[in-house]
Amino acid sequence: MAHHDGSAFYVPQQTPALGETVSVFVRVPEAAAVRRVFVRTTPDGEPKFAPAQVDRRVGGEVWWRAEVVVRNPVSNYRFLLDHPDGNRWLTALGVVDHDVPDATDFKLVAYDPPPGWAADAVIYQIFPDRFARSAAAADRQPPDWAIPCDWERTPVIGSGPETPYQFYGGDLDGITERLDHLDRLGVNTVYLTPVFPARSNHRYDAASFDRIDPLLGGDAAYARLAEAVHGRGWRLLGDITSNHTGDGHEWFAAASSEVDALERELYYFDPETGDYESWNGVTSLPKLNWASAELRRRFVEGPGSVLTRWLLPPYGLDGWRVDVANMTGRRGVDAYTHEVAALLRAAVAGTRPDGLVVAEHGHDYTRDLDANGWHGTMNYPGFTDPVWSWLVGDGVELPNFLGVPGGVRRRDGASMLAAIRGFSSLVSWRAYTHSWQLLGSHDSARIRSVVGDADRQEVAAGLLCTMPGTPMIFAGDELGLTGTNGEGSRTPMPWHAPESWDTGTFARYQRLIALRRAEPALRHGGLRWAYVDADTLVFLREAPTGSVLVLARRSAGEPVSLSGLPAAVNLYGGAPDLRPDGAGAVALPGDGPTFQVWRLAA
Amino acid sequence: MAHHDGSAFYVPQQTPALGETVSVFVRVPEAAAVRRVFVRTTPDGEPKFAPAQVDRRVGGEVWWRAEVVVRNPVSNYRFLLDHPDGNRWLTALGVVDHDVPDATDFKLVAYDPPPGWAADAVIYQIFPDRFARSAAAADRQPPDWAIPCDWERTPVIGSGPETPYQFYGGDLDGITERLDHLDRLGVNTVYLTPVFPARSNHRYDAASFDRIDPLLGGDAAYARLAEAVHGRGWRLLGDITSNHTGDGHEWFAAASSEVDALERELYYFDPETGDYESWNGVTSLPKLNWASAELRRRFVEGPGSVLTRWLLPPYGLDGWRVDVANMTGRRGVDAYTHEVAALLRAAVAGTRPDGLVVAEHGHDYTRDLDANGWHGTMNYPGFTDPVWSWLVGDGVELPNFLGVPGGVRRRDGASMLAAIRGFSSLVSWRAYTHSWQLLGSHDSARIRSVVGDADRQEVAAGLLCTMPGTPMIFAGDELGLTGTNGEGSRTPMPWHAPESWDTGTFARYQRLIALRRAEPALRHGGLRWAYVDADTLVFLREAPTGSVLVLARRSAGEPVSLSGLPAAVNLYGGAPDLRPDGAGAVALPGDGPTFQVWRLAA
Repeated sequence: MAHHDGSAFYVPQQTPALGETVSVFVRVPEAAAVRRVFVRTTPDGEPKFAPAQVDRRVGGEVWWRAEVVVRNPVSNYRFLLDHPDGNRWLTALGVVDHDVPDATDFKLVAYDPPPGWAADAVIYQIFPDRFARSAAAADRQPPDWAIPCDWERTPVIGSGPETPYQFYGGDLDGITERLDHLDRLGVNTVYLTPVFPARSNHRYDAASFDRIDPLLGGDAAYARLAEAVHGRGWRLLGDITSNHTGDGHEWFAAASSEVDALERELYYFDPETGDYESWNGVTSLPKLNWASAELRRRFVEGPGSVLTRWLLPPYGLDGWRVDVANMTGRRGVDAYTHEVAALLRAAVAGTRPDGLVVAEHGHDYTRDLDANGWHGTMNYPGFTDPVWSWLVGDGVELPNFLGVPGGVRRRDGASMLAAIRGFSSLVSWRAYTHSWQLLGSHDSARIRSVVGDADRQEVAAGLLCTMPGTPMIFAGDELGLTGTNGEGSRTPMPWHAPESWDTGTFARYQRLIALRRAEPALRHGGLRWAYVDADTLVFLREAPTGSVLVLARRSAGEPVSLSGLPAAVNLYGGAPDLRPDGAGAVALPGDGPTFQVWRLAA
Repeated sequence: MAHHDGSAFYVPQQTPALGETVSVFVRVPEAAAVRRVFVRTTPDGEPKFAPAQVDRRVGGEVWWRAEVVVRNPVSNYRFLLDHPDGNRWLTALGVVDHDVPDATDFKLVAYDPPPGWAADAVIYQIFPDRFARSAAAADRQPPDWAIPCDWERTPVIGSGPETPYQFYGGDLDGITERLDHLDRLGVNTVYLTPVFPARSNHRYDAASFDRIDPLLGGDAAYARLAEAVHGRGWRLLGDITSNHTGDGHEWFAAASSEVDALERELYYFDPETGDYESWNGVTSLPKLNWASAELRRRFVEGPGSVLTRWLLPPYGLDGWRVDVANMTGRRGVDAYTHEVAALLRAAVAGTRPDGLVVAEHGHDYTRDLDANGWHGTMNYPGFTDPVWSWLVGDGVELPNFLGVPGGVRRRDGASMLAAIRGFSSLVSWRAYTHSWQLLGSHDSARIRSVVGDADRQEVAAGLLCTMPGTPMIFAGDELGLTGTNGEGSRTPMPWHAPESWDTGTFARYQRLIALRRAEPALRHGGLRWAYVDADTLVFLREAPTGSVLVLARRSAGEPVSLSGLPAAVNLYGGAPDLRPDGAGAVALPGDGPTFQVWRLAA
């Protein structure tokens, strides 16, 4: 099967500039009987075809080279394979025998690239109320809205009117004190859900963007945490709500108290009824109106804006995860989303060129990327959902996936792959690889509860650490914590009960993260699928620096025989090294569940 | 198989308004074991699920009803089918077992609908230099650029430096005199390629937008034609070049003669070199710069603008086909296309509310529709290419399809259907049905040369007249004229040689057009595929007013047996009426090539 993707093997120029001509390579098996190859581009909206040249022939494959002019900020291209039986098209969705819309074309993006560190990041997500308490936490008075909870008395109640108010009292110094745990795990980027003052445990209802919640230790504790994180050479990411504030926010208080207040335009007040628009009708979360120049000034553009001030010392956030980015700027006929995303990104880049901006998006994010806004997204539909559905445990009953009715049902490898490619093919390689892959978050069930056991969790974590995209681990997954829905998964970390930790799972996460951080191909390599059946996924991550082969099996089955591969040394999983037999085939083991990684001989 | 589309059977409210709640229906076979149905919408960018209700049970199918709020100008929705084996999603691409991006969701469009007459139109495309000459034409002196040609000495030379200058001298009064031919054929809309003065036979290089080419008879002849067309109750469409003018244009003459000229900003002049941007580097076609307010004034917005003046008496054009709409407003970082399209549409609607605006687009048009701009497009990739590739004749060698290398090769029904659905699923039902379906144009080979014989041409014409979308017939196709590429297909009409006409083909076109104009289901019905194999396509056009069944076979094969259909009366093709056998199945004939249409019993 002919293959191309946006990685350096195929696109050596990874940061193309507008107007530049870049070489792109495509590999085509000699056996495919392809006579000629053309690259099709659509500069300024008109299709153009240019013949590719044979660059080299290696191991039964012809590598063709074509030149693409980066005429537009996003310049799409695809390959036409001239075959005796008719044209074949190669897009990011694979090879088809008929014309397909341009949406799945490969894409060269001439906007400034994401910061270099992002591709190497392994992110650890912390929900501050539930991670750890410093000694000072015990002395703090719970706020009036809180239902104080006992850290050691879990599970958390996952649904009901009290869920936002169950208050465990984790704080920022508690996190700072526990960074050694993260170090042992091997992550290098810390992402905290909101830390602004609020009237809920999740703090997505900010009462201010100007200070850190005193219940978490305030600005000083945030500075201490930032210093400790950066002191380890790590990165720290914040969480900003661009779609709404809390109804306790200073802006909203001013806006709602006085029709003529300057702040009135920051929200959507109905001029007749005085009602205001809110997130999903939840009146405690009034929606921000991005038509407002004053909002843009306060939030993004002005000196000391919400977005930029926390990027500066003594905090020096390395970027933001943007909450409800999917709704930000969208309301009825208002469609400011791409404009706001670009505004936010420009402000971050203007403050610190190595800043990252990643969008929360719970469903189809593809049309919001590659627009000079969000560097990437949280890839729930193109990673989490496919992995869950492939690995969901026997008899596991989950109420839904991010609100989708009907529960999580088991699907086969082909269906999983179709889902992954369905989303990844619509965005640039850059946006795909800079999106966050996750097995769960504070908004979902925990992976352990989805897959049901430690062995399948290993397979899930293996995919997380070896597939393209930035792995994000929700704190506690590495200890085998459970939880069947978002709020119920916000389990306090069991520091007090180390005997409850699944240390085997922790060790697997450790080794998988270390593998990812050690192998450039896992962070920067291409993705070529080698074999898929109902229970088995085999893919290659290939890079000029070397390539690895990955086998994921959800259950035992027949060994898989693959041709065309060199010898390979096992790096993870304990299976034997691979050695081609007389016919040039290697046999991958049939036991399962299992997760194996090999490094291919050069 | 569950089914929904945007037609009135499933969406009774065809012109939803912003904020309205509309009912949508989906039919699901009882045998599909679907327990519950939900509709998923994404108002303001966030997924929402609402349960559907059983509306009725008919003939082994459950019809579910769900309510969709038209929250955004384009409000997408899909169905979730709760199945014992896991969720199924129904989008415009069909039923799948995994989540797919929103792009193929069904769409409700709250923008003003296209004019009512458009859905009933059958368009006849005329290339004025080649259609007919009035007596006056013989007296006109050919222009200096012309290579005068003898009307009776064809074929036209299809490629080479002389092709734009071969001048046959057709004129507007010639068309007016031949309208009886169109009447006999049965069309009701006349579309003329450009009629402005130019320096080529195709006139896409306008020298002015202010007057009609004197070689065609000038303004007065255009008025006479318009009066004659409208006098028959028909519509008349013009062809406007929004992407470029000719280098002989008055505006360009001013712009290029003086750096400080007001007209300079209408084009893209390089301030350093004085070079200018042109269509595909063809310097005779300087590209228009839609950043220019002066261009917008002259072309669209100002009093007596190019776009609006021809819509007024005595011409009263009923709309425009917009040339190179795919490139209009696109250049490097400039991306004014959607803005310009909306501007043009608003100006047309402001001049005559029943005006039509249809975009030329040679490849993937899907992202340029449903944006309050073009009502539809010329559906080359989603109709012409699939039909060609399914019906291409044995041994036919065509150089390319609209510039795509590799020729036109035969593909099977499944591939054809995948191509059709690949494009139609990305746009609203409204945009699909208001796009022009065509078997060829002045820019392509003629259908007769593609399929090779009259019987396959009948199958092609049958699809043209029975599938969704507005049929457009390139003048001469109905006489069996040939031509293997765009310019070579601009054959002068053989009025002088009636013995050369394929009168059998003419009669088939007549009957197919009459059928389309008589059967509401063919103009307004849904589209449900009933059967597809390599050589056979069977589909239903269903409407509250009655339904028809269509069979297209490219060659003989086994009869196809279909269950679940009522008795049916043959309307076209001469096959026997259909009558369900004891097991409830009807047998469709296996001979071919053939094209058959039946009306289903109510």
